[in-house]
Amino acid sequence: MARNITPREQDYSQWYQDVIKAAELADYAPVRGCMVIRPTGYALWENIQQHFDRRFKETGHVNAYFPVLIPISFLEKEAQHVEGFAPECAVVTHAGGEELEEPLVVRPTSETVIGHMYSKWVQSWRDLPVLINQWANVMRWEKRPRLFLRTSEFLWQEGHTAHATAEEAMEETLLMLEVYREIMEEKLALPVLPGEKSEGERFPGADRTFTCETMMSDTKALQAGTSHFLGQNFAKAFDISFQSQEGSLEYAWTTSWGVSTRLIGALVMTHSDNDGLILPPRVAPVQAVIMPISTDERRRDEEMLPLAKHVAEMLNKVLGPRAVMVDTQFHMRPGDRFFSHLQKGVPLRLELGERELQDKTFRFVRRDSGEKGFLSLENLSTEVPKMLEEIQCQLYTRALDFRKSHTLRASSFDEMKAMLTEKGGFVEAFFAGSPEDEKTIKEVTGGATVRCFPLARKDERGTCLFTGKKDASLAIFAKSY
Amino acid sequence: MARNITPREQDYSQWYQDVIKAAELADYAPVRGCMVIRPTGYALWENIQQHFDRRFKETGHVNAYFPVLIPISFLEKEAQHVEGFAPECAVVTHAGGEELEEPLVVRPTSETVIGHMYSKWVQSWRDLPVLINQWANVMRWEKRPRLFLRTSEFLWQEGHTAHATAEEAMEETLLMLEVYREIMEEKLALPVLPGEKSEGERFPGADRTFTCETMMSDTKALQAGTSHFLGQNFAKAFDISFQSQEGSLEYAWTTSWGVSTRLIGALVMTHSDNDGLILPPRVAPVQAVIMPISTDERRRDEEMLPLAKHVAEMLNKVLGPRAVMVDTQFHMRPGDRFFSHLQKGVPLRLELGERELQDKTFRFVRRDSGEKGFLSLENLSTEVPKMLEEIQCQLYTRALDFRKSHTLRASSFDEMKAMLTEKGGFVEAFFAGSPEDEKTIKEVTGGATVRCFPLARKDERGTCLFTGKKDASLAIFAKSY
Repeated sequence: MARNITPREQDYSQWYQDVIKAAELADYAPVRGCMVIRPTGYALWENIQQHFDRRFKETGHVNAYFPVLIPISFLEKEAQHVEGFAPECAVVTHAGGEELEEPLVVRPTSETVIGHMYSKWVQSWRDLPVLINQWANVMRWEKRPRLFLRTSEFLWQEGHTAHATAEEAMEETLLMLEVYREIMEEKLALPVLPGEKSEGERFPGADRTFTCETMMSDTKALQAGTSHFLGQNFAKAFDISFQSQEGSLEYAWTTSWGVSTRLIGALVMTHSDNDGLILPPRVAPVQAVIMPISTDERRRDEEMLPLAKHVAEMLNKVLGPRAVMVDTQFHMRPGDRFFSHLQKGVPLRLELGERELQDKTFRFVRRDSGEKGFLSLENLSTEVPKMLEEIQCQLYTRALDFRKSHTLRASSFDEMKAMLTEKGGFVEAFFAGSPEDEKTIKEVTGGATVRCFPLARKDERGTCLFTGKKDASLAIFAKSY
Repeated sequence: MARNITPREQDYSQWYQDVIKAAELADYAPVRGCMVIRPTGYALWENIQQHFDRRFKETGHVNAYFPVLIPISFLEKEAQHVEGFAPECAVVTHAGGEELEEPLVVRPTSETVIGHMYSKWVQSWRDLPVLINQWANVMRWEKRPRLFLRTSEFLWQEGHTAHATAEEAMEETLLMLEVYREIMEEKLALPVLPGEKSEGERFPGADRTFTCETMMSDTKALQAGTSHFLGQNFAKAFDISFQSQEGSLEYAWTTSWGVSTRLIGALVMTHSDNDGLILPPRVAPVQAVIMPISTDERRRDEEMLPLAKHVAEMLNKVLGPRAVMVDTQFHMRPGDRFFSHLQKGVPLRLELGERELQDKTFRFVRRDSGEKGFLSLENLSTEVPKMLEEIQCQLYTRALDFRKSHTLRASSFDEMKAMLTEKGGFVEAFFAGSPEDEKTIKEVTGGATVRCFPLARKDERGTCLFTGKKDASLAIFAKSY
């Protein structure tokens, strides 16, 4: 067990912070609630970005950039939107040495300023759909910050699309939810439940909000990404209108969808253990580290290092640039060298010692399972990628099994209450209550809310365990981040 | 000539704005001085970013992210720095519904907050060098904005490194200047003069500033990127100190270097013509467009389109995803379809009409020269990449020839004054004056300044044409953006 990491059974929150610190993912910044994303954390974010960005482009989206400052009057054009975001805004009142006529907010999200631009760009049905995404920093002032999960500034992508019909906008909303599910499950190894949010949990200004919910290793839920069907709310507020093919003037239908650096928090809390970070190979900045180990400096430098570098180069051709690195921290003891990579979550360690050099093998140690063994030099270029795929698979399966074993089914409200307060985890139950009912449930369960109505199970219907209404949908209740 | 673009001979500034508008690169945002980078402009920026980012990583740098808000007291720790930047800052005074105890500025550049973090991360000589880059938005309030050249918010990268010795920091400063030169010349086809800035033009807080200067098509100079040797100024202000290998406590030596979306302005003003944008293939979002043209809709849809898509797919395997697109704007007249791509600067147009379909050829039209001809279908996968390379080369050569033919040599101050006021362009002259002398020269020449002392010609020494001092360096004087 690592001495610099508090065991998670002892203090989950401290464990989370210790893992991040030991892996050098992020630090608190000198400005309250803001964070510095350190090189290891940022390289992880770049890999996550690339997976999403490639799928956004493959599904016909283009990137653009909109200004970080938004006139405060823009937020006020959509009543629910301003109510939701104004209290969290950072406000610029002076610039260029003068007081501004109108204060500007640092964007908490960009529906308003993007709506303003779309109203200029969209005139005819031929200008639709507009399928734009933006990678940007946003700010929502946070009084109880937590690295990656809740920081005043965070990095994200926000997709904003405009369509001629409600059907097309709804298709887009669900398409992007599916893209999110795919990347989260296949690349981040996060099993997610795609579903619809309840009325009380909708994005301010949306008609319908969809989410990918995932379970952390303390059995709490985390909202990993959301996709919103905005109806014509923003189109009306910002006059995004167009001449239809038939000649009439219509308002567009819009969507927005986003994932953020919060996903790094989800990775940490899903896969890591008491020794530190564990990363899925498909997003890990370093997938494997090769460690030459010998007390004979000449042999180390003249025989082991050249071989290690040759193998790294060969593997990088298969796995991508910088996927495999050679450890040369020779001033440190071997145990400390192992530990530095282990705590950064490197999926696979390949050791090249005296015995291995002689046998033409590499000793491997898997980060996910601790499994050890030997790989023959001649098979490395096929065996290493294969083992990395196994690790990827194994992390997903383990997380999925964990969620399944911490998901219960409640048939009465008392049963649900007991499950949520005594055991935690996800509780499935039929529900058709109002936002006020949700508030009541949150109070009596010590914080549990409807995380979503899973899309895959929308045909399961039953009696609401709170209101007694018939034909209610199946909901997932849980405490959450 | 394009009716939506003012000829550059008539009004260069209006021409610049018209080219950007016609190419849909950017728009002014509703916040004064800020811009919206539209999809075509942003795709261009992504390509530019990729070229730089790859070289940064190959030269050992890693990316990270630092907060957008900086306490105003941080700027004040370096006297010249605050004097240079405070007047341009946007200031956050309220956040989360409360007035802040200390105002925060939206970063104009990040030496201060990064210096603060480095002082925590750097303890020993083993922690050095720190080689970090950040891709970010920055803000410098601008009263006379101009798209890409001077906007209140812009996108850039800022490298920040810390070293154990002055020599190593100077090596880094010059290495990154060379990386800038390489990408600007080889990818953006911008001929640049790498050189040192005069004392009066240094970055606020730097000991020495180096620049890549390039000439626009109106013969004015543009500073395309800068690399600063910061000495120990920021290390002392933020206490970046370390225990040396010998055990003494030393201050680190730091550098910073940056290029921004201003490079898009440089591309526009270097290569474009009165018909609109011209882009070098290596940064163009679309390198070639294939246009099926026929009044016979059946043949167009059943024969031409499948062939066009097949060819695009084949070429994209060679040139990269989305490098070649198929134009399907069939509701527009062929002339308007041509024009839409021409104004967006697409380097190569490939037409597939009735005659070409029959002859198994494509008609090509080069954007740079207007040259037309035919390429045989069977040779496309080799001939198209070859032609794109020729266009890349040709754009660079043309710009270099233009600079050479607008560079004069002055041997007296009167001569220089006449050249700068009557002819414009670059004027070479020996110079060893003070910042005050530079101010005088700027006044009497209507705005010309020392752009740089070119590094390649530092061995040329002579008598300063302003002060009469011996052993002066060769300087380039010009009016600039």
